[in-house]
Amino acid sequence: MKWEDKDQKLVKTFTFGDFTEAFAFMTRVAFLAEKAGHHPDWSNSYNKVTIALSTHDQGNKITQKDRELAQKIDQL
Amino acid sequence: MKWEDKDQKLVKTFTFGDFTEAFAFMTRVAFLAEKAGHHPDWSNSYNKVTIALSTHDQGNKITQKDRELAQKIDQL
Amino acid sequence: MKWEDKDQKLVKTFTFGDFTEAFAFMTRVAFLAEKAGHHPDWSNSYNKVTIALSTHDQGNKITQKDRELAQKIDQL
Amino acid sequence: MKWEDKDQKLVKTFTFGDFTEAFAFMTRVAFLAEKAGHHPDWSNSYNKVTIALSTHDQGNKITQKDRELAQKIDQL
Repeated sequence: MKWEDKDQKLVKTFTFGDFTEAFAFMTRVAFLAEKAGHHPDWSNSYNKVTIALSTHDQGNKITQKDRELAQKIDQL
Repeated sequence: MKWEDKDQKLVKTFTFGDFTEAFAFMTRVAFLAEKAGHHPDWSNSYNKVTIALSTHDQGNKITQKDRELAQKIDQL
Repeated sequence: MKWEDKDQKLVKTFTFGDFTEAFAFMTRVAFLAEKAGHHPDWSNSYNKVTIALSTHDQGNKITQKDRELAQKIDQL
Repeated sequence: MKWEDKDQKLVKTFTFGDFTEAFAFMTRVAFLAEKAGHHPDWSNSYNKVTIALSTHDQGNKITQKDRELAQKIDQL
């Protein structure tokens, strides 16, 4: 599945077996985000995690930073 | 600050010093949720965490389960 | 690989690709432990996690609680 | 409380109210470690976390990297 370009954000929803699996994934994304100094807007509901990436200090547009973080998340 | 009753959900936003502090809080809420077998709809953006509690299998209404989880979150 | 019976503890070492993968695994084990009300003695060094299970309030012996937690960890 | 210099490692034990509080602390230390590219040898037993810092690629000695990570951990 691919990231969608939605209102100037890269958006993707990931589905897992249960809550703890979803949260373990979030932990790994959190490490990536913190290392990149670039953090997602994201939400979780039980086994689903929706991630939205945009660059706030560039006027909330999609930039190279967002594409790179999206790629790293896909590699997890 | 109190939980707001909003569209049949208990909603509250928590603000922290930075992302890692926010995520450490989310980890503790995740433990509470998993132990209670009752999970929030929640979102995070950098140092902010917004939690919405409702009981899906009771027709998305606020029930005692939500009030109890809200109280435990406040005690963290 | 099997859990070893070592000095009245069930012991096993898990190896991962890197630190964040190891820590995500620890997060999932932490949920299992907290739900079971039974916590491991464990250590981490980069991509390795060593878990030791015994029941402290039964005189530090291996009990059914330890075998059950070991089995759940293996199912992750 | 200070870090002890023990067998060429900086060692300190942190005590918390319970397991989930200890694990939330570990999550924050994990972020620091991953950002620094410098990881602790550490262990957890219920509400206690023992952290040992040394620089493996410098022959397991205490270096500036360890002192900096120790300081950041103390600031959490």
